[in-house]
Amino acid sequence: MVKVGIAGGSGYGGLELLNILLRHPQVQITWISSQQHAGKNPGDVYPNLRGFLNLNFSSVETLPASELEVLFLALPHGHAMKIAPALPGELLVIDLSGDFRVSDPAVFQQYYGIPLTCPEEQKGFVYGLTEINRARIRSARRVANPGCFATATILALYPLYQEGWIDGPVYVDSKTGSSGAGNAPAAGTHHPRRSNSLFPYKPFAHQHLPEILQLLDRPENPLVFQTYSAPLVRGIFASHYMRLHKAHLPQEICSLYQAYYGSEFFIRWVPDYPDVNFVRHSNFVDIGAASKDDHLIVWSTLDNLQKGAAGQAVQNMNVMCGFPEQTALDTAPTHP
Amino acid sequence: MVKVGIAGGSGYGGLELLNILLRHPQVQITWISSQQHAGKNPGDVYPNLRGFLNLNFSSVETLPASELEVLFLALPHGHAMKIAPALPGELLVIDLSGDFRVSDPAVFQQYYGIPLTCPEEQKGFVYGLTEINRARIRSARRVANPGCFATATILALYPLYQEGWIDGPVYVDSKTGSSGAGNAPAAGTHHPRRSNSLFPYKPFAHQHLPEILQLLDRPENPLVFQTYSAPLVRGIFASHYMRLHKAHLPQEICSLYQAYYGSEFFIRWVPDYPDVNFVRHSNFVDIGAASKDDHLIVWSTLDNLQKGAAGQAVQNMNVMCGFPEQTALDTAPTHP
Amino acid sequence: MVKVGIAGGSGYGGLELLNILLRHPQVQITWISSQQHAGKNPGDVYPNLRGFLNLNFSSVETLPASELEVLFLALPHGHAMKIAPALPGELLVIDLSGDFRVSDPAVFQQYYGIPLTCPEEQKGFVYGLTEINRARIRSARRVANPGCFATATILALYPLYQEGWIDGPVYVDSKTGSSGAGNAPAAGTHHPRRSNSLFPYKPFAHQHLPEILQLLDRPENPLVFQTYSAPLVRGIFASHYMRLHKAHLPQEICSLYQAYYGSEFFIRWVPDYPDVNFVRHSNFVDIGAASKDDHLIVWSTLDNLQKGAAGQAVQNMNVMCGFPEQTALDTAPTHP
Amino acid sequence: MVKVGIAGGSGYGGLELLNILLRHPQVQITWISSQQHAGKNPGDVYPNLRGFLNLNFSSVETLPASELEVLFLALPHGHAMKIAPALPGELLVIDLSGDFRVSDPAVFQQYYGIPLTCPEEQKGFVYGLTEINRARIRSARRVANPGCFATATILALYPLYQEGWIDGPVYVDSKTGSSGAGNAPAAGTHHPRRSNSLFPYKPFAHQHLPEILQLLDRPENPLVFQTYSAPLVRGIFASHYMRLHKAHLPQEICSLYQAYYGSEFFIRWVPDYPDVNFVRHSNFVDIGAASKDDHLIVWSTLDNLQKGAAGQAVQNMNVMCGFPEQTALDTAPTHP
Repeated sequence: MVKVGIAGGSGYGGLELLNILLRHPQVQITWISSQQHAGKNPGDVYPNLRGFLNLNFSSVETLPASELEVLFLALPHGHAMKIAPALPGELLVIDLSGDFRVSDPAVFQQYYGIPLTCPEEQKGFVYGLTEINRARIRSARRVANPGCFATATILALYPLYQEGWIDGPVYVDSKTGSSGAGNAPAAGTHHPRRSNSLFPYKPFAHQHLPEILQLLDRPENPLVFQTYSAPLVRGIFASHYMRLHKAHLPQEICSLYQAYYGSEFFIRWVPDYPDVNFVRHSNFVDIGAASKDDHLIVWSTLDNLQKGAAGQAVQNMNVMCGFPEQTALDTAPTHP
Repeated sequence: MVKVGIAGGSGYGGLELLNILLRHPQVQITWISSQQHAGKNPGDVYPNLRGFLNLNFSSVETLPASELEVLFLALPHGHAMKIAPALPGELLVIDLSGDFRVSDPAVFQQYYGIPLTCPEEQKGFVYGLTEINRARIRSARRVANPGCFATATILALYPLYQEGWIDGPVYVDSKTGSSGAGNAPAAGTHHPRRSNSLFPYKPFAHQHLPEILQLLDRPENPLVFQTYSAPLVRGIFASHYMRLHKAHLPQEICSLYQAYYGSEFFIRWVPDYPDVNFVRHSNFVDIGAASKDDHLIVWSTLDNLQKGAAGQAVQNMNVMCGFPEQTALDTAPTHP
Repeated sequence: MVKVGIAGGSGYGGLELLNILLRHPQVQITWISSQQHAGKNPGDVYPNLRGFLNLNFSSVETLPASELEVLFLALPHGHAMKIAPALPGELLVIDLSGDFRVSDPAVFQQYYGIPLTCPEEQKGFVYGLTEINRARIRSARRVANPGCFATATILALYPLYQEGWIDGPVYVDSKTGSSGAGNAPAAGTHHPRRSNSLFPYKPFAHQHLPEILQLLDRPENPLVFQTYSAPLVRGIFASHYMRLHKAHLPQEICSLYQAYYGSEFFIRWVPDYPDVNFVRHSNFVDIGAASKDDHLIVWSTLDNLQKGAAGQAVQNMNVMCGFPEQTALDTAPTHP
Repeated sequence: MVKVGIAGGSGYGGLELLNILLRHPQVQITWISSQQHAGKNPGDVYPNLRGFLNLNFSSVETLPASELEVLFLALPHGHAMKIAPALPGELLVIDLSGDFRVSDPAVFQQYYGIPLTCPEEQKGFVYGLTEINRARIRSARRVANPGCFATATILALYPLYQEGWIDGPVYVDSKTGSSGAGNAPAAGTHHPRRSNSLFPYKPFAHQHLPEILQLLDRPENPLVFQTYSAPLVRGIFASHYMRLHKAHLPQEICSLYQAYYGSEFFIRWVPDYPDVNFVRHSNFVDIGAASKDDHLIVWSTLDNLQKGAAGQAVQNMNVMCGFPEQTALDTAPTHP
């Protein structure tokens, strides 16, 4: 049994990590932290976990780094960079925040509004988009877990960028559920405001954009990236609009994606259209497309707390620890 | 044109007052206050009102009492009692908070957790349940506008209490939408938490209970009152369970309510069952019932921001000012 | 008082017409039809209208054309074309369906899947996008009321197309609430399926596309139009992505829209971002934009049953009858 | 591996059975039926299951009874009674419909509106409320799986009825999510109608009442049972109001429930208040209470498709097959 700790266990990312790791047969959760709820049992904070965990939240200062084998950092942006440099080199660290995703400190500061205080430390982190970076993740001791929007868009566009099919810009219209904003009540997630609403935010400035551009960097294919708040709780639905150098048959498009993802358990090619409904509470990404002449629309959808955060973090842990990659993640999405 | 002011115009009660009064042909809104948004236009705070009001929020300290004819107080509990005693006697004041609804200061303190600092002032207030107290409201200069739950339950039970039909206790199971909690984000109205949820709160201790008991006070019919948070935005749906001294035909029950409310515009007897859906954005209360043997269930539903707050406040203003009672309130509920 | 009839009064479009016309001071509703509910009062079908209308649904065959001055056709696609040719020439007819919006019968058949049986009749219809076609509507006796998606996209793009600012294709990502699908239960509007969902439909084939292209027809600016089902009840939120021939300052973009719409009551330029929340239950269209370099995103939002259907229909009636254009439509949007 | 079949696999009950059984290590699903979708893969009907099951729906007529060890019947009411009599005696049969829950055929007909065609067969069925009837279920070959409302109310009231604590009637106000109505679109589950709604149905006549009364039958404690449609997808929240013979301390009430359920994995006593949110996608029932003087309110909440249907059915299968009772059901509820 691998000994696992979670710093920031009372946010939605931490909660989802607990929920997944509780059913992981090769893992023992031995330390969890929460500044706000130190001393409480997770079941007191999230009653769904009542009775499931005989372990209370500690303060993050008590981190028993030498007694852990894997540490998940599920803290707000800006905190992991304070903790990571002092961690033992042999500890496996998976950071769910944005702190170590962006390699250029100037770009980081531009999008996150704070400086990256340990750029050298950042160099030790592998970007944890498992299906793209699996080999590097396997031997990594530090993984920067991708953002939810970034995972949806990179996986949707990667084959097209790799093969150079796209002619000109790509427009990304990506809609998220309210759980992506975290568990702290705020104006944009106030129920009377968020129910029955739909509104854009952070045009041209969303902090997931730089990590996308690190992987999808082609000057001839600029990426316009726009996020929206939708009145659902879980889920990212990303739409990608573009022109191709030439028209392709649906069959050819499908074949392209099969060539890249055909052996991937967590990526499903959808013959009709994806729907947030059918990936919920799972680590799956459903991808589909429609085309006419040289116009192409690619859709991807995922659960922002699973493949968009905690699910992919556990997937990465499985890869790093040599466990079967689907361990604790192989259940079907739930519906309704 | 009557000159009207609203203290606390940026809460949901104040917002709804603005929305209603903007279509009132005999009223001019000349002063609105908001501590949080002083200096801003209502349309900057609530973009639905963009372009509708050429008047900015002031600080409540600027209250031009002598220049107003009607003043609505739509402040959080505890604030009206600080303002009311200094107001000119001839000003018509309608308070939407709970401050002046409860005549016994000890009971007020028990349920509201704060002392009533001006019990003498309270004696000058008439309880503004229009259909029950219309005559007294007509000549009043101070009205304590009822709570949303109280309005739903008093109107549902009043004929039965008045006629002494009930044998033993009455159980009230009342469900509310999230807008009833106001416009300040909080844990219970966080979208990921409130969507798809259902949970009780304040058992035996809800602050609307004492104002109900003031009107429905029969020792032989104790009232058990329980409130629930439901995942809707607007609406109160109240269920009332009881036993009658004898079985009554549906026709007799209907006749009882017709006798009390048959001439009331805003109270509709519903032959099948009420639904929150069909009173939304209106000042209507729909009431219906089902019975078997001597068991009776009475249901009432209303829009908590209209008949449960601002709508009834304007209804009371109409009565106090001698306007037709339905002015600005005669539109049909909206659906879907 | 103008005598008005509504064919198809029990669909959501007809229901919204009733709700609006009930508060119209210059109109008397004298005939309403519903095949499914003939003989019933609207209040029996839609309990929100209980008590508001002393008139029952008739069968559409009873249409008293000679006794009406205005007739709204709110029937499913394919029905208006059967009725319209026999109507008296002097009757003012406003059709809310798609039957008469598309001038090319071949295009109509391609998108609607049925033939246009009366192409000559179609020529008599003016396309009822009030702000664009006001002058022609004023003298029209037949108006084809626009589709909800079409209204949102045409108004958002019209100034840009007129001025020739756009370089290359425009991508439209438009999200709709469930009421747009009508009041007949179906798989895509089943509550367990639609709640918390997000999914695309009809790629490259939505029937509102041809009416958009009739007004926004520039071969150098092809339009890719994609619709989505979002888990809200009312509202269209349309996103438009494009490149401009050159970069424009936000101020210039705002000025362009002010030049076109500055005097329009129902079109509001929004300095930050529009939100479905703030146009609900109103005839307003809120438009806003964001730009970076030569990339531009324009957003428009409206209530699909108001400006997207019944509201615009009444706006058109007001224009045709010489009433003030805002009559019965001048109330503020509701929130929350 | 036990060979399992599911008749009616394309309803929500069948879908949830598939989802649970797919993670059951001692079970192999070898036959599934759907009249509507015969020939299709479950993943074509419910895309969340895409890739999970290499088995297509058959017509129910193909039932290979002799090749199965366990058969779940997840058909609409009235169908199981046609199939059950011909099934081999040694086959373990778990019926999720109401057909075999009610022992008195006259009562069955009164509440279900159809006759029970095989009353002798019914006598062979054990009522599958696991925590109450575990011993009898262990040796049963036929189990009638309880209704969702019945499970919530029986578990909430059983200790009180057993101990005779209640004085007079019990009022049950039980709210359900839309998935309880099944996967066929209908007026009451139409998204524009069901969102933001709350309405009662079937007063004094809900078909779950007779199975409740079979277990909670005390003439001095009549039960008034009222169901409501709430705008959530999954979940039952049941409120139970009553008077006790004498006042009990909260501690005593807790102790009573601990005495009955303290060793039950799936029943959790909740010190504050239950919430539908915290049992979702799990087989748990959360129970809590509030009291004042001799008045008691007991709340229970469960997921209607899990403990209210498929979860309890698998729990019963585990008991019947001698598997650990929590197998495939031991995951934590999901939130948010």
